[in-house]
Amino acid sequence: MPEIPLASWTDGPARSAIVDFVARVTKEGGKDYVRPAERIATFDNDGTLWNEQPLQVQVFFLADRIKQLAAKDPSIVGRQPFKAFVEHDFKTLLSLGKQGIAELFFATHAGMSDEEFADIGRAWFASAKHPKYGCPFTQVAFKPQAELLGYLRENGFKTYIVTGGGVDFVRLIAEQIYGIPHEQVIGSSIKLRVEMKDGRPVLMKTPELGSFNDREMKVQNIGLQIGRRPILAFGNSDGDLAMLRYARSGAGPRLALLLHHDDGEREVAYDREFMLSPLAEALDKATEYGLTVVSVKRDWKVVFG
Amino acid sequence: MPEIPLASWTDGPARSAIVDFVARVTKEGGKDYVRPAERIATFDNDGTLWNEQPLQVQVFFLADRIKQLAAKDPSIVGRQPFKAFVEHDFKTLLSLGKQGIAELFFATHAGMSDEEFADIGRAWFASAKHPKYGCPFTQVAFKPQAELLGYLRENGFKTYIVTGGGVDFVRLIAEQIYGIPHEQVIGSSIKLRVEMKDGRPVLMKTPELGSFNDREMKVQNIGLQIGRRPILAFGNSDGDLAMLRYARSGAGPRLALLLHHDDGEREVAYDREFMLSPLAEALDKATEYGLTVVSVKRDWKVVFG
Repeated sequence: MPEIPLASWTDGPARSAIVDFVARVTKEGGKDYVRPAERIATFDNDGTLWNEQPLQVQVFFLADRIKQLAAKDPSIVGRQPFKAFVEHDFKTLLSLGKQGIAELFFATHAGMSDEEFADIGRAWFASAKHPKYGCPFTQVAFKPQAELLGYLRENGFKTYIVTGGGVDFVRLIAEQIYGIPHEQVIGSSIKLRVEMKDGRPVLMKTPELGSFNDREMKVQNIGLQIGRRPILAFGNSDGDLAMLRYARSGAGPRLALLLHHDDGEREVAYDREFMLSPLAEALDKATEYGLTVVSVKRDWKVVFG
Repeated sequence: MPEIPLASWTDGPARSAIVDFVARVTKEGGKDYVRPAERIATFDNDGTLWNEQPLQVQVFFLADRIKQLAAKDPSIVGRQPFKAFVEHDFKTLLSLGKQGIAELFFATHAGMSDEEFADIGRAWFASAKHPKYGCPFTQVAFKPQAELLGYLRENGFKTYIVTGGGVDFVRLIAEQIYGIPHEQVIGSSIKLRVEMKDGRPVLMKTPELGSFNDREMKVQNIGLQIGRRPILAFGNSDGDLAMLRYARSGAGPRLALLLHHDDGEREVAYDREFMLSPLAEALDKATEYGLTVVSVKRDWKVVFG
């Protein structure tokens, strides 16, 4: 625990909004007091807790998995959606719709037990390097956010990741990077099926979509898996807007934060033009919806750890 | 916290199995040590944590909800599945299959927001009395089990309810009775949909099944929502067998407990003949599957609080 909480945050409006909010909800006897059981905070992952540029971490994993598959069966890269993917033709890929994206995931993330998938994923994280930053992918997390997660937990919050990324993938590193246990990661999922293997039951990952945890589905999965409206939520794209509005519009004190990547020198400046996960409506309507915009350039002293 | 842990448990094989197991997994440096993040314990609810005889608590709630609906539209009790239900004709009801059961729930648990449902449920728990015991339904919980949950948590376990009951229903009382927060209740669910109501997003409960959290589905939902194989599981019926076997067959120390209701004097003696939730295969194969059978008669000094 740092001596000064949120030491990587510039002393300014965003940091003040966070510190004031936490002070209010934790002040026993105060009018805004929230008991610990209700202090639920939900964070998007890609672009909110770690870097998503030029591509989300899981996309690099997916690419390496397709290379592994192509080494066994070269014909797959001549077929869609694999062809568009290996050619970085994201326009065509997105035109294939959710089913196209889903098929990429089924081919690379399914047909094995959750334990086998975890072994593959851990080996990848142990060896792969981010092509832009040259470091392990576990090091592209944002330092100010790791501090914020810790600060919230020290103040009795339960911190959740609510990500469009695959739940099994994000669980591989959430504890190490963010101090968040498996059961506090809610993500996109494929359906699991119990099968007997070597005389014992295992969970097989099937080629069938469970849920694509984006937009309204984030809220629906929060309802199913947490069963409480978060009092704090943090996101960075239109895919998080439903969750931010849901958290913001409950009774009592509420804080919804929207990260704006506006620092091309230290990270990358982008918003509405990022095809895979644009930020447009949430930014345009931040004031109307009561969202606190956090600027990387203005509000963070450092970006990475 | 009681001076003697598990004070309501008779000093015998079941209590010893629990105490020994907890001592082994918490002994730092020991060969069976399990770090706290992996100390996941999952409990069935109906018949494991609270009484389910002559009927599960939620069935009484369902009956009162149908009475409320019939007061507005008396014709519904002439139609299936309502007719079979109000006539206590469970044989016919079960012959209507999962869809019949689901329709009972859709009619009584859906078409409202999760917040409206919680208000209805809380009002019911505050006023309704168990027809056999004459007490509020919150008082039919088993005292030895409340002690066990507390004992496990004091030893660094995270305790979960994994129930065939409705997740929103069980969450209403899980914190009060068992000290288990909303997010550690996994149950049967109907799908939620985000809707705008009075200018703010709410979660509506739709008449569409999410999952019926019984048998293999318990294991699949543990995989989705917890993402770890529990090291301890406790159930009382064949509906829990998949979960018990899943917990029991992981690597390292494991404890799977099966409650046998064999005390007709203090509670009720039943197993394979209970149509709504029989115990047969799990009892017959307890030894083969490595399950520790807990006898109400032999292992519990008291049943209720």
